[in-house]
Amino acid sequence: MKLYNSIGPNPHAVRMFLAEKGIEIPKVPVDLMKGENREATHLARNPAGQLPALELDDGTFISEITAICEYVEELHPNPPLIGTTPKERAETRMWARRVDLNIIEPLAGGFRNAEGLPIFTGRIPVEPEIAAGLKRIAQNRQLWFDKMMQGRQWICGNRFTYADILLYCFLNFGQVVGQQINPEAMWIKAWIERVKARPSASV
Amino acid sequence: MKLYNSIGPNPHAVRMFLAEKGIEIPKVPVDLMKGENREATHLARNPAGQLPALELDDGTFISEITAICEYVEELHPNPPLIGTTPKERAETRMWARRVDLNIIEPLAGGFRNAEGLPIFTGRIPVEPEIAAGLKRIAQNRQLWFDKMMQGRQWICGNRFTYADILLYCFLNFGQVVGQQINPEAMWIKAWIERVKARPSASV
Repeated sequence: MKLYNSIGPNPHAVRMFLAEKGIEIPKVPVDLMKGENREATHLARNPAGQLPALELDDGTFISEITAICEYVEELHPNPPLIGTTPKERAETRMWARRVDLNIIEPLAGGFRNAEGLPIFTGRIPVEPEIAAGLKRIAQNRQLWFDKMMQGRQWICGNRFTYADILLYCFLNFGQVVGQQINPEAMWIKAWIERVKARPSASV
Repeated sequence: MKLYNSIGPNPHAVRMFLAEKGIEIPKVPVDLMKGENREATHLARNPAGQLPALELDDGTFISEITAICEYVEELHPNPPLIGTTPKERAETRMWARRVDLNIIEPLAGGFRNAEGLPIFTGRIPVEPEIAAGLKRIAQNRQLWFDKMMQGRQWICGNRFTYADILLYCFLNFGQVVGQQINPEAMWIKAWIERVKARPSASV
């Protein structure tokens, strides 16, 4: 396996997942800022033009971080980060999709259509007038998430999972691009420090 | 197992998935229009207040359609709708997340913040000024998707999968609420007729 890697929260999530598993694979840098990901060489790996992409030994490419991490978990089940039973896996996947649709997508959309405009214009459709509303939704959904998490150590209770990795990498990215943790999200504030303390967080 | 069911594209996707599997389970209707999903009884099943929710025999609830369908596939692997190998499953999950983030989320957000305002106001944060931009993005992403699909019967080639079900149920919903199939998306136009011809599509 080989990981086509770059800056940004999506590759960060895969690197963190691999680090939690104790797996080291070759990483090939692709320069997002220069638009290398939109050139023919990378489009042959991932026609969506995004990063990261995982190249398997038979030359197949897998994109989209959830698919990559599920694949890695199937080949290397320990330590489990999705789950060891159908019910555990369902719980992780449920929270991962909630994070994806409610927090990540408005946060990332808020960035792409505002601070990210110089990078994304001409690469994907951009709509500057939606940025502020999306950012407000992402902030509000942090509180919604926070309320459901009271009393839990990790998103799935005692299990540290892919859902924690996903949320952490995007909230961390949000802070870098001006979308702070909602000051009223007290659970998230404490939880993010717990995640940050893991050696995998800084890879 | 028991499915808490309603109108809308999310429950439709689970019903279609179960129909493709040939599985019949009891369905308990929850009235979205009356807001029953935001009342304490349903919030105890799914604190996110959304539908559908799957109740397991031990009383556990699973929400989020991807998690529900993956769970059903693990218990009832045939016919496979996610995949029979780690690589097949990765391919399905890759396309499902692309559909989720690029097409479903802007389409659904376009609805929630425009035609859906009478339903969603007071339930979730709404931002009317983002609706038009999100609808334009959903339309554009149909063309992006269409381009990648040339020559394929289904999204994952010869395999009819959860990714087809997901995209079909939301594009079908989009048509009902004024978001038509992009007239230039020729592959999608032909594909949607192939999906519609399956008996499972009308459940």
